[in-house]
Amino acid sequence: MSRPQSPAFTAIGLSPIVAISEQIQSLAPMFEASGERFAYLQRGELADPTPAFVTEAVHRALDAGLTRYPKAGGELWFKEAVVRHLAEAHGIEDLGPEHILCTYGGQEGLQLVFSLLGGGRVLAFGPVWSCVLENIFPYTGFEVDMLELQETADRLEVDFAELERRLPQADVLYLNTPHNPTGKVFSHAELTRIHSLCAKHGVRIVSDEAYKDIVFDGGEHVSPLRFGDDQTIGVYTCSKSFAATGFRIGFTVCRDAALIHRLTLGEYTQTAGVVPFIQKAFAEALDNTRERPGWQAQLVQSLQDRRDLIWDRLQPVFGEQLYKPEGAFYFFPNLAGYVPEPAPGQDCSAYILQRFLDQGIAVVPGTAFGDDRYARHIRLSFSGVDETVLSAGLDRMLDGVLLQDRRASA
Amino acid sequence: MSRPQSPAFTAIGLSPIVAISEQIQSLAPMFEASGERFAYLQRGELADPTPAFVTEAVHRALDAGLTRYPKAGGELWFKEAVVRHLAEAHGIEDLGPEHILCTYGGQEGLQLVFSLLGGGRVLAFGPVWSCVLENIFPYTGFEVDMLELQETADRLEVDFAELERRLPQADVLYLNTPHNPTGKVFSHAELTRIHSLCAKHGVRIVSDEAYKDIVFDGGEHVSPLRFGDDQTIGVYTCSKSFAATGFRIGFTVCRDAALIHRLTLGEYTQTAGVVPFIQKAFAEALDNTRERPGWQAQLVQSLQDRRDLIWDRLQPVFGEQLYKPEGAFYFFPNLAGYVPEPAPGQDCSAYILQRFLDQGIAVVPGTAFGDDRYARHIRLSFSGVDETVLSAGLDRMLDGVLLQDRRASA
Repeated sequence: MSRPQSPAFTAIGLSPIVAISEQIQSLAPMFEASGERFAYLQRGELADPTPAFVTEAVHRALDAGLTRYPKAGGELWFKEAVVRHLAEAHGIEDLGPEHILCTYGGQEGLQLVFSLLGGGRVLAFGPVWSCVLENIFPYTGFEVDMLELQETADRLEVDFAELERRLPQADVLYLNTPHNPTGKVFSHAELTRIHSLCAKHGVRIVSDEAYKDIVFDGGEHVSPLRFGDDQTIGVYTCSKSFAATGFRIGFTVCRDAALIHRLTLGEYTQTAGVVPFIQKAFAEALDNTRERPGWQAQLVQSLQDRRDLIWDRLQPVFGEQLYKPEGAFYFFPNLAGYVPEPAPGQDCSAYILQRFLDQGIAVVPGTAFGDDRYARHIRLSFSGVDETVLSAGLDRMLDGVLLQDRRASA
Repeated sequence: MSRPQSPAFTAIGLSPIVAISEQIQSLAPMFEASGERFAYLQRGELADPTPAFVTEAVHRALDAGLTRYPKAGGELWFKEAVVRHLAEAHGIEDLGPEHILCTYGGQEGLQLVFSLLGGGRVLAFGPVWSCVLENIFPYTGFEVDMLELQETADRLEVDFAELERRLPQADVLYLNTPHNPTGKVFSHAELTRIHSLCAKHGVRIVSDEAYKDIVFDGGEHVSPLRFGDDQTIGVYTCSKSFAATGFRIGFTVCRDAALIHRLTLGEYTQTAGVVPFIQKAFAEALDNTRERPGWQAQLVQSLQDRRDLIWDRLQPVFGEQLYKPEGAFYFFPNLAGYVPEPAPGQDCSAYILQRFLDQGIAVVPGTAFGDDRYARHIRLSFSGVDETVLSAGLDRMLDGVLLQDRRASA
């Protein structure tokens, strides 16, 4: 059969993170045969078990017989729990259930939103999460205009002049705070200015807040939904907030109820809706102000300890060139000058990846988050490893991957 | 904000079945206040509880910690279980895991397949399941060409001459066996001829076999996948086979491994994949040749008893005009001449629906499965009611809905 296939499907690829994870499955056992443990620093997933207050709620909801067709877009009680949660945890007080859509993770939320918006030009702060870049944008017909965050003396700054210059050509702004892969948490002041510029130019904000509950040093996550209008679409997942990637549940929020209704029709068409006993368990988890805050505080502390461990080891080498993540669970260092240059014609990104793999460390090449402008960056995730494995991996990175003269400065 | 939205989203509606179910939520309590029970004959869902061998497997898989990101397209062990199941239950022997995609029900399978095929003209035997007609086809850019099944003396026949005439203009044939809403089970001979004509004209078959395990009178379900080439895409769900609509799991099968790979990329983009502990439970359920066949045999017998009850009551009234379902769980009678004609200008379908609702019976109007050509048909589902409620509902239908002179012939 040679019928044509949709261009949407031919434009997308498997996430490079998934591809690397599959490559590692054969490499890691060989490496570990030497007695050392492989450092899986490529994963965007917590190694922590899903808390018992969630899994027990799933067991209960299943036993209660919540096994019939879901209501597309989410059950009313799920939406009401989200409304309470966003008020309680983030001070967003004026939402109703008509503003909430329950989705299969943040991923379905983003895919449905960009599908509904129907293609065009999306402005995004670079580097950009690989899945939207390589999957969701091309699948939904969006061309990306990447505005690089400026690396200025251990800070990552928004170039507001450039933002204002590019907004008139944009249909949507994709915002991601806390930011994958840099760990930047956009401040209230930055978001106020971004939101105001978008309003001025009539550009919707798709605000991907997957890591909203992972902010370090007592910092605060701010959602542009706080600014009260209907120009922001907030996309959330329970994956990171509850170490629950496999439950595939999240929610999308917008004060434009007609837009949420349209997304509901799309979700009905695609999947009919989210598994009801899973909705029930996460409605309870979001409402669980007795166990959730403590569990999340312990999670954030444990991630912050690992962030500090990396910082203490790498900052003396990289100095001001290293950005200290304020949230999420990634570092995104620029290795230019710290690793040998590849041979002429050799793919720089693949070369760096291979040097890490040779030392029993999996990372994601920077090109996954942009293009050749990040060819010498890597994303290091500290979500999937304990401190022992992380520390040994950092040793091997410092000894076996980085250039002698650079690590000597450590 | 007045940005354009995707035409795909504006073309679709909420399923009329969903809309009716919501309308009933206010009507039914009023009706039941009179002491009689409302007859929910609109549902495409079994009232039977999900069997314990499934729910217990979900509990076990959850406890075993299968709570991490799924592999998009399905876990290898899920695909292998599907391969074994299709060989064991349907004699399809030559498949491998590379031919299988795990989906959120049959619905995600159909939506992904039609999305991949990328729009065009789909030929379908009428009446056509409302969800593909009103949601999946418009969402994925397909225009439907409906070829009505011929009602000939209590049979429903394929008009093969017309099929051959229309196939050259078609990009895809949507086939549904057992057929919703008529209950027709396509025979081996019919499928052989359909398949051969499609092969001749290079038309892919999307074979929706959601009701494959619900065939009456010892009949056999035949899949066009049996014919051994890669022109058929078989779409399956566990919803009906295990009374498990809320678990949202199914599978799509095609010998074109490249096509399955593309669908996998699409599923990764949309939802990342199906909840792994649910995949595990249904892999076990498909493999469970100890408990599954007995449970399904009892289910089919119970549905057949209800089919026979309806048949025994309605056949004397409708005579040869009534088709006896060979599978699935619906009747699709033509009420022309059996109900009073609506007033001029009145919507016929809404009028008939209201007459049923007045008698405490919910049905789906025939227009949901085609257009005005089915304005005097209704779909009666016998999946969601016990025999007592069904029998009382049929009494009210015969006494209060049908014309006096017609029911006198009973």
